[in-house]
Amino acid sequence: MSLKYVSRLRPLALGRSRLYSSLPPTNRAFLASPVEGETVTINGWVRSVRKSKNVAFADISDGTVGEPVALVMNPDLAKSLLTGACIEATGQVKASTGKQAFEIEANAIKVLGPATKEYPLQKKFHTKEFLRTIPEYRWKTSTGATVMRYRSSAISKISNYFESQDFTQVSSPIITASDCEGGGEVFQISGGKDGAEFFGPNRPAYLSVSSQLHLEVFTGALSRVWNLAPAFRAESSDTNRHLSEFWMIEAEMAFATELDQVMTVAENMIRSAVTPLLDEANSVIARDLLATKKYEDKEQKLRDRWNMLAGSKEPWKRITYTEAVDILQGLYRENRKVFGKVRPPKWGEGLASVHEKYLAGEYFNAPVFITDYPTSQKPFYMLGNDVVDPERQTVSCFDLIVPEIGELIGGSMRESSHDKLVQYMTNRDMNPEDLQWYLKLREHGAFPHGGFGMGFERFIAFVTGQENIRDVIGFPRWAGSCVC
Amino acid sequence: MSLKYVSRLRPLALGRSRLYSSLPPTNRAFLASPVEGETVTINGWVRSVRKSKNVAFADISDGTVGEPVALVMNPDLAKSLLTGACIEATGQVKASTGKQAFEIEANAIKVLGPATKEYPLQKKFHTKEFLRTIPEYRWKTSTGATVMRYRSSAISKISNYFESQDFTQVSSPIITASDCEGGGEVFQISGGKDGAEFFGPNRPAYLSVSSQLHLEVFTGALSRVWNLAPAFRAESSDTNRHLSEFWMIEAEMAFATELDQVMTVAENMIRSAVTPLLDEANSVIARDLLATKKYEDKEQKLRDRWNMLAGSKEPWKRITYTEAVDILQGLYRENRKVFGKVRPPKWGEGLASVHEKYLAGEYFNAPVFITDYPTSQKPFYMLGNDVVDPERQTVSCFDLIVPEIGELIGGSMRESSHDKLVQYMTNRDMNPEDLQWYLKLREHGAFPHGGFGMGFERFIAFVTGQENIRDVIGFPRWAGSCVC
Repeated sequence: MSLKYVSRLRPLALGRSRLYSSLPPTNRAFLASPVEGETVTINGWVRSVRKSKNVAFADISDGTVGEPVALVMNPDLAKSLLTGACIEATGQVKASTGKQAFEIEANAIKVLGPATKEYPLQKKFHTKEFLRTIPEYRWKTSTGATVMRYRSSAISKISNYFESQDFTQVSSPIITASDCEGGGEVFQISGGKDGAEFFGPNRPAYLSVSSQLHLEVFTGALSRVWNLAPAFRAESSDTNRHLSEFWMIEAEMAFATELDQVMTVAENMIRSAVTPLLDEANSVIARDLLATKKYEDKEQKLRDRWNMLAGSKEPWKRITYTEAVDILQGLYRENRKVFGKVRPPKWGEGLASVHEKYLAGEYFNAPVFITDYPTSQKPFYMLGNDVVDPERQTVSCFDLIVPEIGELIGGSMRESSHDKLVQYMTNRDMNPEDLQWYLKLREHGAFPHGGFGMGFERFIAFVTGQENIRDVIGFPRWAGSCVC
Repeated sequence: MSLKYVSRLRPLALGRSRLYSSLPPTNRAFLASPVEGETVTINGWVRSVRKSKNVAFADISDGTVGEPVALVMNPDLAKSLLTGACIEATGQVKASTGKQAFEIEANAIKVLGPATKEYPLQKKFHTKEFLRTIPEYRWKTSTGATVMRYRSSAISKISNYFESQDFTQVSSPIITASDCEGGGEVFQISGGKDGAEFFGPNRPAYLSVSSQLHLEVFTGALSRVWNLAPAFRAESSDTNRHLSEFWMIEAEMAFATELDQVMTVAENMIRSAVTPLLDEANSVIARDLLATKKYEDKEQKLRDRWNMLAGSKEPWKRITYTEAVDILQGLYRENRKVFGKVRPPKWGEGLASVHEKYLAGEYFNAPVFITDYPTSQKPFYMLGNDVVDPERQTVSCFDLIVPEIGELIGGSMRESSHDKLVQYMTNRDMNPEDLQWYLKLREHGAFPHGGFGMGFERFIAFVTGQENIRDVIGFPRWAGSCVC
């Protein structure tokens, strides 16, 4: 990054030359290969300062890596250093006797942006609730920055996985005319002088709740597609796993004829973003994430979680909804008082969140695909299973559940028959006219396909060991809260 | 992808085993390494069929690659094959005497989804206007699918570039309380029973027009960040380079102290997504893109465009706004009648789009950074240049202009002084109260930084040689149009 080159513009047009330089090296680059004796300049924010009579120490971080750069200096130089200040420091790299292998013996410090003692992130414990009140500073904490770096890394690994499998990344629309899932929990938009009719008279527009229907169109052209896009729900659920604005990774694949194929893609996608963490020696982000857990038992808990997801090559457990209900009813019969006052599941009803968490948690202690839910529990577009028992009709679908979080991914095979879809919509009091474009896709060249969607923040929260998904998205929005 | 493995679930819970299989190979995988004599099964949609008395040919595509799979078969087998049908074909790989090196001698064809003669994409020329009327089918054209694959590839290359430079990919909010650019061209949202007050009384919420202000917060934590996110403008411009919903790549970097550093990052980002295209022998997507141009001169024009962007290692031209105005005024003085009735530029006014296109096109025939625009032309957050001439105050900013498109990227150094920003906002009749969080970021540890934003569809349109950005986004939205 220290390449400098000189412009060779046509002198006619310019009459001057400039020095072209790139950015100064990051702390991450410096820490990756410090050279003893070399004079270096680093930039960053002061995380902490310790001063004694003869020497001062400061930890500097620029947020590109968890480990801070250790400065040692004459106390005079440290005079104006306060936690939170932004500085440029120059000095010689020395072997250190402290926690870190190297430190910089600083001989020049430039304060680029001072801080005062009112800087809210003094070196002490801050609750997540407090951090959420300072949106402009919260990501400066080492946990916050590390979570964001993992989020970035996960996108990268998942992109690579999909690319290796010939998936095309597409961009489905955010503004949509299709209030597909119904239910009224959608945001409506208006703009310009025409307000709610910006897109035409009687053409209300909504924020997308899922990219799936549009992804199916792309699938009909590109076979395998995926998407990382924001999704929106105008719901008032105030829980640690709901947001009004969240990101989803969704994938659709043509020529999948069995649900197992789709589940395997979902599983491999997650593995692609977790497996690298198992190799702590070579994964900076794994070490950074573990360092956010101050205590050894919490550190081990995080490691265990990664191992649970990716430690074994065994495919994840796959059980049917009916089997899940049987297991749970069996537990009730055995009189295990693990579910408090939650009543036992009944075939045909949804599984309670505590039931899902128990299955993935105490019962299997592993991620579990639960497949083949009752038709009545699922949306119109899912492929129906062959009817064995007319009282127990099911669709070819799955929920992936994991301990503590519950549902992480939902997916299914999609119905590819135009006429059946019309029937399914009619059965559900939906108007097929509203989704003509979606139905038309089946008029010529209908194709077997399936897909899934994963709430990206739930995934990041699970892998980074954060309890609330509000703490893994930059500027969380929920009912009553949109602060900047 | 043919790995099959058997579940080892606890028999207690399951009482059955399943076959776990992954997806069948794509056409892309097949065409990458066909083995003569091997029996294969491929899936895809019929692009065209030719039948004679003794033999029939069909081109099949699954959209994962531009080149179709050639089938040769007994005419009986081809009986039900119509353009647009979705099929599975099995047969033996043979050396071909046709355009392609290999073909499949099919002995079994299964129609997965039939088509009729009403299928709208018969083998003939379709105008872009017609294709936009069939959103469910338009991406099935070979040009459409290829553009989408390049879009995906460009995201991947750009991600890799940023990752190599220690940038963190972040997700800035889509719903925002900050109508930052003003101007009223924003979409407003409402949801749930509280409607426009979903986020609280007197807390209107908008769709983001740019991630920049929020990215600056991330930059204060992570130093180098980038973002690929949708942006929205409720404007009625009905041109080939405006959309109501589009995607932007935005980057912000701390410790950049010179605009040149930021421009170099922007330049290298674009090069990262174009350079691979220059190596036609090793780039499937380059060959696919060239194949979308039916005529040799158009093909060469596309090649020339890639070469213009990435063929030389020379940094792109960088001239100041003042120099640009001088050049243009000189052309007018020389009486060159190249601008029709557009009047000459005057220092202090914006450059007309035709002026920008002329500079990048006929004049330089190259991408050009135009820097240091008049303060009055630019937003409040840009860093002011030292005042040399009080009548000609400028800010440290740039527009990257390219031939035919005009502005592709806009960027600047950002003002990091809290007090100056308050003054700049006040000068522009903005209320500093509205952006307290943004101003607060400067209260402790302010840092030098700059960044830029690129309209992603403009970039894709330019590199793929599409004239209208509506043809490089899945479901384009503009005033009066949001069809599904």
